[in-house]
Amino acid sequence: MNKPVRVGMVGAGQLARMTHQAAVDLGIELSVLAKSPSDPAVLAGAKAVFGDYQDVNLLLEFAKNCDVVTFDHELVPYKAIHFLEENSIKVRPGSAAFMYSQDKLYARVKLQEAGFPVPAFTCMGEDDINAINSFADKFSWPVVAKSRSGGYDGRGVWVITNREVATEFFDNMKVRHGQSDEGHLDRNDQDQKVMPEETENFLTANSKNRFIIEEHVDIAKEIAILGVRRQNGQFLTYTPIETIQQNGICNELFMPADISETLAADAKSLAAEIARHVRVIGLIAIEMFITTEGKLIINELALRPHNSGHATIEASYTSQFQNHLRAVLDWPLGSVEMKVPSAAMVNILGSKSLADPMARIALLSDFPAISVHMYAKEPVFGRKLGHVTAVGTDTKALLGAARQCAKQLVGE
Amino acid sequence: MNKPVRVGMVGAGQLARMTHQAAVDLGIELSVLAKSPSDPAVLAGAKAVFGDYQDVNLLLEFAKNCDVVTFDHELVPYKAIHFLEENSIKVRPGSAAFMYSQDKLYARVKLQEAGFPVPAFTCMGEDDINAINSFADKFSWPVVAKSRSGGYDGRGVWVITNREVATEFFDNMKVRHGQSDEGHLDRNDQDQKVMPEETENFLTANSKNRFIIEEHVDIAKEIAILGVRRQNGQFLTYTPIETIQQNGICNELFMPADISETLAADAKSLAAEIARHVRVIGLIAIEMFITTEGKLIINELALRPHNSGHATIEASYTSQFQNHLRAVLDWPLGSVEMKVPSAAMVNILGSKSLADPMARIALLSDFPAISVHMYAKEPVFGRKLGHVTAVGTDTKALLGAARQCAKQLVGE
Repeated sequence: MNKPVRVGMVGAGQLARMTHQAAVDLGIELSVLAKSPSDPAVLAGAKAVFGDYQDVNLLLEFAKNCDVVTFDHELVPYKAIHFLEENSIKVRPGSAAFMYSQDKLYARVKLQEAGFPVPAFTCMGEDDINAINSFADKFSWPVVAKSRSGGYDGRGVWVITNREVATEFFDNMKVRHGQSDEGHLDRNDQDQKVMPEETENFLTANSKNRFIIEEHVDIAKEIAILGVRRQNGQFLTYTPIETIQQNGICNELFMPADISETLAADAKSLAAEIARHVRVIGLIAIEMFITTEGKLIINELALRPHNSGHATIEASYTSQFQNHLRAVLDWPLGSVEMKVPSAAMVNILGSKSLADPMARIALLSDFPAISVHMYAKEPVFGRKLGHVTAVGTDTKALLGAARQCAKQLVGE
Repeated sequence: MNKPVRVGMVGAGQLARMTHQAAVDLGIELSVLAKSPSDPAVLAGAKAVFGDYQDVNLLLEFAKNCDVVTFDHELVPYKAIHFLEENSIKVRPGSAAFMYSQDKLYARVKLQEAGFPVPAFTCMGEDDINAINSFADKFSWPVVAKSRSGGYDGRGVWVITNREVATEFFDNMKVRHGQSDEGHLDRNDQDQKVMPEETENFLTANSKNRFIIEEHVDIAKEIAILGVRRQNGQFLTYTPIETIQQNGICNELFMPADISETLAADAKSLAAEIARHVRVIGLIAIEMFITTEGKLIINELALRPHNSGHATIEASYTSQFQNHLRAVLDWPLGSVEMKVPSAAMVNILGSKSLADPMARIALLSDFPAISVHMYAKEPVFGRKLGHVTAVGTDTKALLGAARQCAKQLVGE
């Protein structure tokens, strides 16, 4: 038998788990660099190498056994990715694109330089309380502080309402910094030459800036535009998704987003321009604000399958997971059109009672048309344990049913 | 972490492969009793025990580690299944139901006794050429001969057009019998008492009957009704599927079948009655003929996910694979309704050139809306290497596109 096509994925969480399912359909092998045998993708049967993704030698060894390497998170140090590329590994997205998802400050600066609409922002180190106060003087309180890297699901984002809160925030950050383990490679670990000059200069100039301070945008809606891009530049955008944030986490969404056709078209064009600018290969998820004035503002980018795209499994001809695989392999992309009129997705979040949804799935009886996706994770309060998707015609009813089902599964 | 729910499946072919994907969604573990590490379900990451399913001790050891045991084929000896039941293993479907899919003669006799419409038939041993000739005298040539067990995909079915062909058939069968390895347990291997008396009597009375001889029905169409039944009797039927046979293999199908609503309703009721009669737990696929006179006649039963149901992955709210798992676990069944207007499926069959579809998938460009399912099998002429499904509105166009895509993948 011919050697199977093997895609390596760094990380083995639920995104890798669902990517594995998509890989099975395509007849390819997903190999994951995992932390533990209980990682969701390992439990789903992806071939696993266990170890620390910050160990560049292990990473290289892992990558050498794969036809192409991709990621289920953005925590791999930029320099490690560049090191793989220097060793002739096909990395998708490449290190230059990866900077846009790994370093929020880099993304902000570069997108602003290129003329894309981003919130007003500044950056600051941790002994620089004046930055935040003078920014607020200019733009008014509240302001938003964001970790430059490593934040997700509401972590690493703080709304700062006044000078007192700003002082508190600083004090907390100083304490936390002492304990922090951000996992960046020490810059002496690797030959400096592996970093392209421009990126190097940016990182040097901003080495002390750990936070972005940005204006608090008046948001009417939040949407996510998912797109997928091949090496040859072919780019397809999924139907716009409307995301509903709770405590900074996108736990609910529906598609198509409830926005005008013009705005949908504008958002898709903007996504296409960003994808081309970033030169992503694979999936890109672009979170956008729609302001109360109806303007589109770029919030964040993720260069991988994304929570906001889970409904594409049931609702679109080709799921985000399968299209990510197709793109990183430089295979023809699948259709991103919807095959049903509407879809809603709700995350299954660990409840305070720590009820195990696996013990409750057998009790479900009112939701026969809902698709359940369990991640095989131990219940922890607030943790994403799975998601449910409903497809049909009446968006409001679908969202209501999905929400109810997700709650029942955790005993709420 | 709680011990995961574990479903054992005997056999690790493409049905087990797709069942594994469904198991991942449900957060349960599929454990397969496989022949080799290159079995399709093993390559997809199902936990595997390797060995011979005819080794009852191995089978029991395998089963003891699972919450429930089911099958991806019907080759496990009836007595072995009954042996598991005697050892308090939950087997789904149970041995009594399993007889209907394993022993075609048993199914015919029992369904006829219960008043279900089956073709006129008789049975015969291999030194009994008179049976076939006298049956043909009564019903006219041609007649159809079928292996009582082990036949599938056109194997084990012969159309016999006249006395000369009948004589040839007999001569061939005698030669083949010398080489045959049907894999039934020798009846002295196990305590005779494990078999219920009625089944025992049937098997004793028919021990020499290796073939069914049946009338050649004038067929207008063939359909498959898939249903799924829980322990508590809950039974749901999928939308009727129209199957297109080539050389006795169902290689193409579409759903809904192009039949009247009345006939569809009749076929679904008939399926429900049969499922209740058979007391199946899990999936049941009932292949039916629609005669040129518009009558429904039962052809064969399979008590497992079935090739004719593959389009349910994309076309129905709940796939046959997921509903089989739900049913054998006695979990609430998922909706069997279609979420799209129409679907067509075509098998990817090994071509004479032995072109590897995995090497050709990257060349596809005209079929972005088609879902590809590869089984990770080595190309062999005529072997099912995968399938493609198209969903949408125009059945004829969907079938045409799926057919073309399947052919391109094997270089035809």
